[in-house]
Parts: sequence; C-alpha cells; structure tokens
Amino acid sequence: MVKENNTYSEAGIIVIGNEVLSGETLDTNSQYIGKKLNELGIVIRKKISVPDEKEDIIQAIDSLWSCCNLIIVSGGLGPTNDDITKKTLATYFNSELIFSQEIFEAIKKMLRHRVPVISDAHRNQAYVPHNARVLLNKLGTAAGLLFEKEGKVLIALPGVPYELRGLMDSEVRSYLQKLTSSNSLINKNIKTIGIAESIIAQKIKDIEDSLPVYIKLAYLPSIGQVKLRLTAQNGKDKDSLSKELDVLIEKISSRISEYIYGYGDVTVTEAIGLLLRERAASLSTAESCSGGFIAHSITSVSGSSEYYLGGIIAYSNQMKVKELGVSKSILDTYGAVSQECAEAMAKGARKKYGTSYAISTTGIAGPKGGSKEKPVGTIWLAVDSEDETISKKIVFDRGRIQNIHLSSVIVLNMLRMLILKKVDH
Amino acid sequence: MVKENNTYSEAGIIVIGNEVLSGETLDTNSQYIGKKLNELGIVIRKKISVPDEKEDIIQAIDSLWSCCNLIIVSGGLGPTNDDITKKTLATYFNSELIFSQEIFEAIKKMLRHRVPVISDAHRNQAYVPHNARVLLNKLGTAAGLLFEKEGKVLIALPGVPYELRGLMDSEVRSYLQKLTSSNSLINKNIKTIGIAESIIAQKIKDIEDSLPVYIKLAYLPSIGQVKLRLTAQNGKDKDSLSKELDVLIEKISSRISEYIYGYGDVTVTEAIGLLLRERAASLSTAESCSGGFIAHSITSVSGSSEYYLGGIIAYSNQMKVKELGVSKSILDTYGAVSQECAEAMAKGARKKYGTSYAISTTGIAGPKGGSKEKPVGTIWLAVDSEDETISKKIVFDRGRIQNIHLSSVIVLNMLRMLILKKVDH
Repeated sequence: MVKENNTYSEAGIIVIGNEVLSGETLDTNSQYIGKKLNELGIVIRKKISVPDEKEDIIQAIDSLWSCCNLIIVSGGLGPTNDDITKKTLATYFNSELIFSQEIFEAIKKMLRHRVPVISDAHRNQAYVPHNARVLLNKLGTAAGLLFEKEGKVLIALPGVPYELRGLMDSEVRSYLQKLTSSNSLINKNIKTIGIAESIIAQKIKDIEDSLPVYIKLAYLPSIGQVKLRLTAQNGKDKDSLSKELDVLIEKISSRISEYIYGYGDVTVTEAIGLLLRERAASLSTAESCSGGFIAHSITSVSGSSEYYLGGIIAYSNQMKVKELGVSKSILDTYGAVSQECAEAMAKGARKKYGTSYAISTTGIAGPKGGSKEKPVGTIWLAVDSEDETISKKIVFDRGRIQNIHLSSVIVLNMLRMLILKKVDH
Repeated sequence: MVKENNTYSEAGIIVIGNEVLSGETLDTNSQYIGKKLNELGIVIRKKISVPDEKEDIIQAIDSLWSCCNLIIVSGGLGPTNDDITKKTLATYFNSELIFSQEIFEAIKKMLRHRVPVISDAHRNQAYVPHNARVLLNKLGTAAGLLFEKEGKVLIALPGVPYELRGLMDSEVRSYLQKLTSSNSLINKNIKTIGIAESIIAQKIKDIEDSLPVYIKLAYLPSIGQVKLRLTAQNGKDKDSLSKELDVLIEKISSRISEYIYGYGDVTVTEAIGLLLRERAASLSTAESCSGGFIAHSITSVSGSSEYYLGGIIAYSNQMKVKELGVSKSILDTYGAVSQECAEAMAKGARKKYGTSYAISTTGIAGPKGGSKEKPVGTIWLAVDSEDETISKKIVFDRGRIQNIHLSSVIVLNMLRMLILKKVDH
C-alpha cells in the first residue's frame, strides 16, 4: 500500500512507441500528463521515449524508478501485435494476465454499434495483470493499469490521445489528488504578445537578477508571443508563496503592460473574447491567405458564438469582389496583396455581417506565388471598426504554416489594441 | 575526426527545458528531428527530456553516449538566464567560450530592423565553445554547435521551432548526409481513413503473421484515421528491400482499398486536392460548428487556391439564412443542427460560390449547448455535388477540439467518396 503522507513531488513519464521516436507521430500525451501533474504540484523530473521493445521499456522504468516515486507510462496497450506494454509490465511486476469479465462486457458494450463481431484482438484486451488496479477506459478498449510497489506507483495509460486524456481527467486525477494534497509547487504565467523575448529580458533585468533562489523565471516563446512563467517552491506555505508571486507579477507587468493580454492559461482568442463580451461587441472575419485559421482560433473558444457571428474565406479574387465588395480597380491597380485590398476586405466584412469589428488577411503564404516586389511571406493585415481602419504589412517567410500562424497572431493583436484604443498613429 | 565510413545508424535526442516537462510547451522539435534523421536511415533509439539543470543535462548525454553515435540536443541556447545549454556543453567538452566576431556581425545584421540597441544578452550569443563547429542560424541569434569526440557527434540546436527546422534542413542535413549514405532503413506508409485499427488488423492478420523478422508493421491511429507503417532494415540492399515492401503494400492495399486515400506522407486534404485537380473540379465550404477548421486544413496545402475558391463560417443562424439561403422554416422546424440544415448549407454554398462540390458542418461542439435530444457532440455533415447530396450524423463527444477535428475528417472522407463515386445508398 502507498502511504497517504507520501508527497509524490517527483514524477517521470515514459512514452512508448517507435512512431514517436521516428517522428511519424507528434507526442501530445506527455504534454497533457505534464500539465495535469503540474496542477497537482508534481514536478516532472524526466521524460523518456523508447521503442516498442521489452528491454528498452524495462530499462526506462528502472532508470525512473530510482529518481521518482510516480511513473506514468503511455502507449502500447492497443489490440495489435506491436503493442507490448501490458505483457512487459506483467513481467516487470511478476504478474499473470487474467481474464476480466467486467472489462470484456464493457468492451462489448462499447463496440456494439461499431463492429459486427468481437475479434480475438478485442477479447485479448480483457486480459489484465492480476496485481494491477484496473482504470476503466470509457472511450476505448485498452484499460489503464495501476501498479503499487515499494511505496511507489506506476500507471500505464493507452496511447490514443483522447483515451489517455479521459483517464487522466477521471481515475488518475482522483487517485493522485488524495496523495498530493500537501504539495506546494506554484506556477503563474504572464502572457505577452508583440514583444521579443530579449526586449522583455532587458526591461525586467533588475527584477530577474534579484529573484530569490526558490523562484524561477522562464521565457517561453511561441510564434508572435512570449509566455513568462514564474515557478515557486520552498516546501512551505502555499498561500504566502502565491502572494509573493503576485507582487512580482505586478512589478513585471508594470514594465510591459501594453504587451500583456492575460495571465494563467488564457489564450489570445479567449482574451479577445472577454474584451468583446465586456463591450457587448461583435466580430467577423475575412480571410484570404490565413485560409480559415483565424476563424478556427476564435471558434476554438467555447461560447465564441456570443460575439463571433462568422466570416468568409475569400480565397479567390472573384470572392473578394463578389462577397466583400472589393472594387475591381483596387485589384487591378494594387493587386490582392495590398493595403487597399486588406482594408476593403475588412470594411466589406464589417458592413456585410453587421459587426462591431472585422479583421482581414491577404498575402502570399507560400512556398509558391512570390515575386520580386511581393516575396513569399508578404502579408497585409487589417482591422476595421466604426471609428477607424488600421492595417499593417509583414514580410517574414518562415514556411507556409508558420506564415499563416504568425499573421493570425499579429492581426489578432491589432484587433486587441484597437478594442483597447491603444493604437499608435 | 569522425570517420566517413561510420554508419550513424543509432541516434538519441535530448530536449532541454522545464517548460516541456511541465507541459507548458508542446515539444514539436523532437518530432521534426526524428523525421529528418529517419529520412537519412538513422534510427532513434531513445529520447530524453530534462529540466534546465546542469547535472540532468550531463546525465542525459552520458546515458545516450553509451548507446548512440549521434546525439541531437534541442533547447537552452537562448539569450536569457534560464538558458544554460551552451555553458553546460562547454564544461562537458572541456571547452572555453570565445567571442566570435563573425557571429556577432550576423546577429547585428539580423536585429538591425528589430531592436534599437544590441543588448548584452545578444552580445553574449556571439560567445561559442572553442572546440565546437558553429552552425550559423539565419533565423535567430542562437548558433547551432557541433562537437565531435571519440568518433561520435553531438549537435546542439536552438529550441525555437522554426530556427531548429532551418538548421536541421541546411547545415545538419548536409553534414549528416555525407556520413549516412550507406544506411538502409526504409519506411513506407499506407494512409487510411474511416476504418478502425482493430478491423484492419483482422483483415490483414495472415499477412502480418507471416512478415519476415526484418520488416515491422505499426498501426498509428489519429482522429478518424489509421496510418500503417512498414519499416524494413536488414543492413543490406536498399532497392530489393524497397521492392519487397512494395509487394507487401499491394497485398495489404487489396484488402482495404476503399479506406486508403494515399501513401507516404500525403495528408487527406492533399489527396482530395489531387482528386479535384485531376477532374478540374472546385470546392467551397460552409462551416458552422467546425468554425473554419476545414478551410484551414484545405488551405494548409500549398497550391490549394487552384481548386478551393473559399467558403463561409456561418456561425450564427442569421448568416445561415442570409448568406447561404437556409430557409427560416428549416431552422424553425428542425433547428440548425439537423440534416435539413446541413444539406441546405452545402447546397447554398455550392450555388453561391459556383463550385463543383461544397461541404458543410452544423452541430454542437460543446462543452455547452447540448440538450437531451441533441447532446454535445451531435454534428450533421453534408456534401453537395451536381449529381447528389449526401449527409451523415455523428454523435460522439470527445471534447470541443476533438469534436471539431473528428467531424472535419469524416466530412472530408465523405467528399472523397463522393468524388470517387463510392457512396453507399
């Protein structure tokens, strides 16, 4: 039995699968596990990815067993021959595989509408190590397995992302919550947009240099954004640590306030959603080169239908003219990738859809389509409101997908600044 | 010096950064590295993620040094205080940091338009270990570093994804290409859609059971799709291995042909793009619940403007009526989440934009907005063509983002089947 007073402050993650090592599959599971453990105050010491090979898996468990009291394993629990995690764990924990009628019934029920007959492969999913606690998977046929040994815990989860997430959020979470109530790690984030990592570092150098040893500051850049993460842990009082971080956050914020769109886990489209809601304002989009990515970012936020009415992907010039009222003379004189076209698109969308704000993009995402005057990565962005229209050109080629992402982030920040009436003229 | 005849068949990857362990950042770098090494016939044996701590980094290098002859390290080369990779590697390789005027000039040139003054942090980026080969980074201030020792190689790359990619695709690639010309690992993929992993396994069980030991088959499921990956390596002739895999792929393909949309690295939107091009056909979209994600998937393909004219995100009912001509009586009688509405949206889009095909989505992506009759995850999908209109309902709640992804994959497959005239009635 695991002792209730064990703090479970250190964990390791093992990701099993050749496909992750070869890069065929992007591993999002270990990120999800990391996030969820972090919320419980558990620090992840190490993450190891190994092939679907018995010895490699055992070696990884051994190496984490020495530094961590919690190990989470993901992958290799599926019904096909390349899945060997269950057998390997049974060997590791000196266990026999026994047939569980309960799991078999759950599998049959789940597959009722999906397959005509239950295959042997599916039946095999009902065999589990006799000394493992079973974590019932409501979204797939591979049960999670929990082993306790020497006061430590190993939890094996299926590699299919939504199944893993389902189990992490239910069975695993409630099991770990009981064990981690006394942990004292705290994370707080400042989310910035439109300012480079190095400029922030310059502006807050003195604050950073005088941080106490138990508080760490990390700069986490992504396209067009930098997240500042403050982490505190001194093994003592959570409340006073939290207050100390709040003071620091206020100090840092005062130096870079106009670049901050939020704190914690908020995304830029969530922050914009809040601003629009507060003002009972509405939004529409007119995308050319970003091809729906901005609409997707906006509608990824639950409840976005309250302020986002919709938009258009005007990929062809014909649609720019017919649907957004961009004049032919603009296209003939300046071309589709121009300030005039971007502004006309934003104005056209705002008028047509009757929204408070509208944003537009038009440019050359690449890799083809560039010219000497307008190289790949040339993108015009515009935002229209009742009071004014703003626009901006970017020229920076980082590859098609990156160009789309970067232009989306920049135009969303233009919208944010316009809503806040902080636009420079 | 590294010998030219070294085969470099085994590599390890080290990802440095607290933010990756805590899940604050999704690690896409190691996937990219894995893919690129794989293309060169290099097998990745292990991947380790460690915090920004000297001892952890050194321990990770030690553990990979014993099993691999190539180590790629990502992260921790930035200008801020939490970046300690360069110093740590200098210690590890008994090196001193020396100032490089060449790098400093490149940094100054790069930052010319971006910052008013060169900070100390940026100047520090020009210091490099004296025994490292410098890999000039054209997209950022952190140079890549290459160390050779005991016939093995360690390459350190910046953690900013597009900078890492830039270096992997240029300097690293050309360095490794010379060393790996004699490798013989081959990967081939079969990409399927609309069929479960376990059903495929059943249909090809005999083929799988009789695979030679040097050929491995992996099932790589993602939302709505399964990729079958065949890997062959017997240390011998690449051409005959390749032919052997081709025969196997043909055998497997004949069992599941209607579910296969392509081979290799092709995506489903690329495959659909090819089908449309072959027929000189065009496409438009009318999205409600998928909120632009389908348009984004389609326009992620370079050259999509040749067949994709654009589309609408009709998020509000008002837009469904005004822009797509969905009748008010449909909304009043059946509601927006109905077969009638989905079909009217697809027909409306096809007519309005004058395309050969149009696809539509309308549903409840969640987590709010469900009812007893129409729970969260209820989504109607439709495709319209000159000859016919097809539609389908799915009810499966995996969380907002997953619901959006799944419905997109399913409706894209409906389009594929309609283009190929393989629709069941």
